[in-house]
Amino acid sequence: MEKGALLYEGKAKQIYQTSKEDELWVSYKDDATAFNGEKKETLAGKSRLNNEISSLIFTYLQENGIESHFVKKLSETEQLVKKVEIIPLEVVARNVVAGSLANRLGMEEGTQLESPIVEFYYKDDDLGDPLVTEDHIAILQVASSEDLNVLREKALEVNKHLITLFDELNVRLVDFKLEFGRTSSGDILLADEISPDTCRLWDKETNQRFDKDIFRRNLGSLQEGYQEILSRLGGSSWSK
Amino acid sequence: MEKGALLYEGKAKQIYQTSKEDELWVSYKDDATAFNGEKKETLAGKSRLNNEISSLIFTYLQENGIESHFVKKLSETEQLVKKVEIIPLEVVARNVVAGSLANRLGMEEGTQLESPIVEFYYKDDDLGDPLVTEDHIAILQVASSEDLNVLREKALEVNKHLITLFDELNVRLVDFKLEFGRTSSGDILLADEISPDTCRLWDKETNQRFDKDIFRRNLGSLQEGYQEILSRLGGSSWSK
Repeated sequence: MEKGALLYEGKAKQIYQTSKEDELWVSYKDDATAFNGEKKETLAGKSRLNNEISSLIFTYLQENGIESHFVKKLSETEQLVKKVEIIPLEVVARNVVAGSLANRLGMEEGTQLESPIVEFYYKDDDLGDPLVTEDHIAILQVASSEDLNVLREKALEVNKHLITLFDELNVRLVDFKLEFGRTSSGDILLADEISPDTCRLWDKETNQRFDKDIFRRNLGSLQEGYQEILSRLGGSSWSK
Repeated sequence: MEKGALLYEGKAKQIYQTSKEDELWVSYKDDATAFNGEKKETLAGKSRLNNEISSLIFTYLQENGIESHFVKKLSETEQLVKKVEIIPLEVVARNVVAGSLANRLGMEEGTQLESPIVEFYYKDDDLGDPLVTEDHIAILQVASSEDLNVLREKALEVNKHLITLFDELNVRLVDFKLEFGRTSSGDILLADEISPDTCRLWDKETNQRFDKDIFRRNLGSLQEGYQEILSRLGGSSWSK
């Protein structure tokens, strides 16, 4: 497998062509960004941590029957993935009130939800990734009503498995963001990454943050938090 | 019928008790506010215009089988209404892209929607009346899923009748906000007001605004715009 031309560079990853038409080479970056790119820093080692964690989580999900674009880890900071056309929606699942949900509803961070909820945000930096309803998504014509049912179901299924995974590691899965893509045959496939950049992960006993809120809110060393997640994941039985 | 104690004063109306337990006395104010109260002005005659227009529209809707809290007009600036407990949701129906929808989706104002949409906003000044999804409303526990179906259906029914009404008057019904309340017997009843304060109304030929955007965007005399709506309503056959 050879790395081809750079196809796309996002805030946290570079995507390259490969010799295979339907596979892409993903290279994680050390850049951390927040608030729609307004806060930005380079944090050495972040690329490795996210690539390792995301690879472990995608592997765990695949072992539990949840397909994704993940093919294999190529190096400490690189992954091979199946090529998909990303659906421009951030699919957010939440178990606990935090972040924008706390602000939107005027509720205290840490409030446990009676049942998980799923939200959709329109991926558009210029618009600030706004919350959208199913009606808005119909207007934007980025996903059908049937697609949204699939996205919601898949997000809740991922949520169920990630809760089980993190629960064993004494980590509270507060919320997370997924992205999905369409394969050339039209199937909807879990894509992007699942890492402390895209999840809120709190220590179950101390509520210590092990996620990007460390960076957003200046809570200390991001790398130490992410390393804690990687260490706990490495110690779990499923990866043996 | 006698006006009793002041029960509540909002941005645009005062609500008084009456001698009847289940009826309230509404007095419209000349105050105009926008952007969650940040822009504020007193505009002489606005109370009369909104009371007259809202009374005509509620009467029209009742003649078309849509019940509301409206009982009768008491004076140029006052109405008698049935007492309800307001559900803290703004129910917005849209036929044409404008205002916050244009900003949210990055679409041009004036774009006709293929079919009307309904949005819910949580009525909370401190939070800036945020857009909420059905999941958010379930968390807030302000309306059940069945209630939301009722609200959506009623909003679309009102929309259908208002489109017919305004179409005859050469006015394009762009969008509008409704509020609903619960009666003591638990029924959901259309409440609040329907006026150029709560609708976007554009001249079908010139796109001239006859609604609160005149005030929000400094487009001229609000009273002249509202008076144009009242005059056109007065000239329609259904009020004879």
